[in-house]
This record gives sequence, C-alpha cells and structure tokens, in this order.
Amino acid sequence: MITSVSNGKIRQVAQWQAKAKERREAGVFLAEGFKLFQEAPLSWIREVYLSEEAKERARGEKALWDKLNAAGYETVSPQVFQKISDTKTPQGVLCVVERPVYALEQMLEREAPLFAVLESIQDPGNLGTILRTGEGAGVTGIILGGDTVDPFSPKVIRATMGSIFRVPFVLVEDLQAALGQLKANKVTVYGAHLSGQEEYDQASYRQGTAFLIGNEGRGLSRETAGQADKLIRIPMEGQVESLNAAVSAALLLYEAHRQRK
Amino acid sequence: MITSVSNGKIRQVAQWQAKAKERREAGVFLAEGFKLFQEAPLSWIREVYLSEEAKERARGEKALWDKLNAAGYETVSPQVFQKISDTKTPQGVLCVVERPVYALEQMLEREAPLFAVLESIQDPGNLGTILRTGEGAGVTGIILGGDTVDPFSPKVIRATMGSIFRVPFVLVEDLQAALGQLKANKVTVYGAHLSGQEEYDQASYRQGTAFLIGNEGRGLSRETAGQADKLIRIPMEGQVESLNAAVSAALLLYEAHRQRK
Repeated sequence: MITSVSNGKIRQVAQWQAKAKERREAGVFLAEGFKLFQEAPLSWIREVYLSEEAKERARGEKALWDKLNAAGYETVSPQVFQKISDTKTPQGVLCVVERPVYALEQMLEREAPLFAVLESIQDPGNLGTILRTGEGAGVTGIILGGDTVDPFSPKVIRATMGSIFRVPFVLVEDLQAALGQLKANKVTVYGAHLSGQEEYDQASYRQGTAFLIGNEGRGLSRETAGQADKLIRIPMEGQVESLNAAVSAALLLYEAHRQRK
Repeated sequence: MITSVSNGKIRQVAQWQAKAKERREAGVFLAEGFKLFQEAPLSWIREVYLSEEAKERARGEKALWDKLNAAGYETVSPQVFQKISDTKTPQGVLCVVERPVYALEQMLEREAPLFAVLESIQDPGNLGTILRTGEGAGVTGIILGGDTVDPFSPKVIRATMGSIFRVPFVLVEDLQAALGQLKANKVTVYGAHLSGQEEYDQASYRQGTAFLIGNEGRGLSRETAGQADKLIRIPMEGQVESLNAAVSAALLLYEAHRQRK
C-alpha cells in the first residue's frame, strides 16, 4: 500500500491531474469514480489507484472486483488518494487511461456521417454534455476546433458520464481546413446562427451532415460561419438571445436523429 | 461612497448572498453583472451597488447610465464590492431585486398551456439552463417540486442569462397535488422515462402539455412517474443510459414548440 504522498507514482499522477500539458505529453487522461472505471475499456487502462475504503466496498461487487483484478491496482491511504483526486469527496478509485486517437479520414468513410463541429467551446460541462448527447444521437464524430477546452480535463470527463470512452472525436489545429475536408467528402455544413434564413427543422439531414456550434458568448466566428453551406436558426420566443451551446447541439443532433430513424 | 465592509447595508447584502433563507425571508434575490442589471425590470429593482470602476465604465454607455440613474445606486469601493460579490472577477454592478410571485391558477387560464415540471433538479446550471430554454421554447410556466435547488441562488440566476426576469415559475410544496391540478385542467402529463413505450416525437403536444423531468442521478421518483398520463422515451444510441436533465427538457419543450408552430 502506498502511504506517502511523495511516492514517485503519486507525484506523477498529481502532476497529470494538475497539468494538461503533462497529460498530453504522456498520452493519458485520468478517470475518477466507479462509474467511469467500470466503463473504461480494459485495454485502455494503464494504472488504477484504489483507496483502502473503496477496496472494501469493491470486494462486495463481483463485476467491479473482477475488473479491478484484471486491470491491476495499487491500494493507497486516504491521504494519498486525496492528493491525486480532483473531487472534494472522492469515491476512492482513479485510473490512468490511454488517450484514444481517431482519424477524421476514417469517420468520413462512413455512409452519411453525422458530425458536430465545435468552435471554441469554453465550458467543460458544456463540452462533456455535448459528447454525451452526441453519443445518444448517434454522431459519427465530434470535431473540436478553435480554442475549445481540453476534452481530457477532469471536469469534461465527468460530464461525459462515460461517453469519453465511446464517442469518436478529433482535435483539429486548422478548423477551416477540416471544414474543407468535410465538404470535399459531400458533407453539408450547417451553421447554427441567429441570422439563419431557415429554421433548423426545415432542412434535410439524411445525407452527410455537420453542425457548427459556436462559442458560448460570441457564437460562431465570421470566418467559420462563412464556411457553412447553409445557416440555420433555432427559433426563440420571448427575449432569449441565444441558447446554451450544449442545448443547441442537442436540438440539432436529435433533429438529425429523428429524420434518420 | 461606501468604503467600509462593516456598513450595515453591505453586511445585509453579504448575508443575502450567502444565505438562501435570508433572501427568502426578505423576498429578494441578487442579480450581478451588467447584462442582468440591464434585463431587470426597473420596478423590481430595490437597490443597486456600483463599484467605482464600473461607474466610470457606465458613464460612457447611455442606456446603462440612464437606467442606473432611474434605479438609483450606491457607489462602493473595490474591497466593498468584493465583499458582496459572488464572482471571482466581478463586473462591479449588483442589484437587489424583488422576487416575482406567479400563480399556477393564472398559468392554467392560458389556452393549451405548456409546462416543464421539475422534480429535485440539483445542479444550479441545469436549472438556470432549463429556465432559459423554457423561455426560448415558449413555455407557459415551469413548476419546481421535490427538493429542486433554490431558483434564486446566484448560480441559477447567472445561468438563466436573464430569463429569471421573464419566465413564470412556481415552487410547489406538494408536487403530487400540483400534478392533480394540472390534470384537472386538461393538461396531459408526460413523463420522460427510460421505460416509456412511445418515442417523444410520436405524441401530440398541441393541447395542454406538461413534461416531467427527474433528478440528474435518479430520474423521476416512482410516485411521480406513476402520476404521468403517458411515459415517453428519448431514444439513445450507443451505451448512453440517460441524457443531461437540461438537454432532456430542451428536446421535449422544443418538440412541443415545433408541433405548435
């Protein structure tokens, strides 16, 4: 059992918890809590840390206990667990997971693919919710451009409720180039925009479709909106000026899902 | 100008900021930031606190300056503003606003009313987003039951983006009784539930409609789900077990909006 917070492994995990750059360089992310551990593919798990109390709890749950033993784990003291945890009241299990790598090219091989393309989404809860909703709506993939928040940050991981392990996503340096690649592959690019001429349920999304979702405060940049094949609009009653980014993404993706049933 | 954090008014506002019970007893809530100040109905505003820097900024913006002068304001030092603010980087304007009081009876006088009924929504961001989305979708009102988070908490107010001033909502002690009242007024109650037999876009929401939305982790209680006239289901691909509560509410309310256009 690891009882010292200055243990080398513990210091490394704490660094990964604190620094996006360190996580990126090591090609890992951290997933905390029983639900995420249960949903993580076994082959992605590199290390598992388990607090003493969590170990007692886990012994009583066969599926969980079997997975812990298959993955291998280190037991740590409560103080040590607190050091590596991102939460105030930790559940006592944290795993270091290998980052998945997806290719846009592969996504484009699918027939009539469905994409959400995010430009500079800043709120981790919104990004996590979009990944979760995207899986629910059956997206082919999610494209993260601009200065979108790190999808491997602990808050995003938590908000995905496990979808981080299943929804394909790519981070693109050059959003305009990625949009060009979509269009070259017969994917129609729709921009959710206040000045859209058509309401969002008037267009057909049965063919290859990508929805552009803009930053929470600023919406889509002029350059990105200009790349859209068509601007569409979600109608809003009252004096609402815009909807939450995750809500907009959900309405568009589920409208595509509804049409494709 | 108020420069002392032990000023009586300042201590009172700080108490309202910290304690839901104090706010409730005084019949007020706090709205911080320029956007919320601009959207607050003048007749609801009881007090306005403005930091020195914010005052300089406000002088340059005519509509804002006019409203500040119409409402009346107290200038405070930066330290005093920090004391009453709920944010790390305050904008320098905070107002004490009278709570609106709405009656379910009045909402029920509308033809074919549209409701969201929330049971024990716990996340302030979710509640605020539901109020904002509800205004966008044209709800008649939102009913808050169970142990739903205080709608007048600062995080909820911020997440509404101003809809707190416009969307009618009622807090009900007895959710079952409120559902009975809806049904007695020919409002059909739909429960979003994993075991719903019909997909959410198969029912007609053109008549009086209420959507039950359950707690983030537990969903609807058995008792509340049992009160629904019909259980409906949002389809989910992949291994998604549920959607975010605000996303579910958005999909249902906008499906009703789509049908009612």
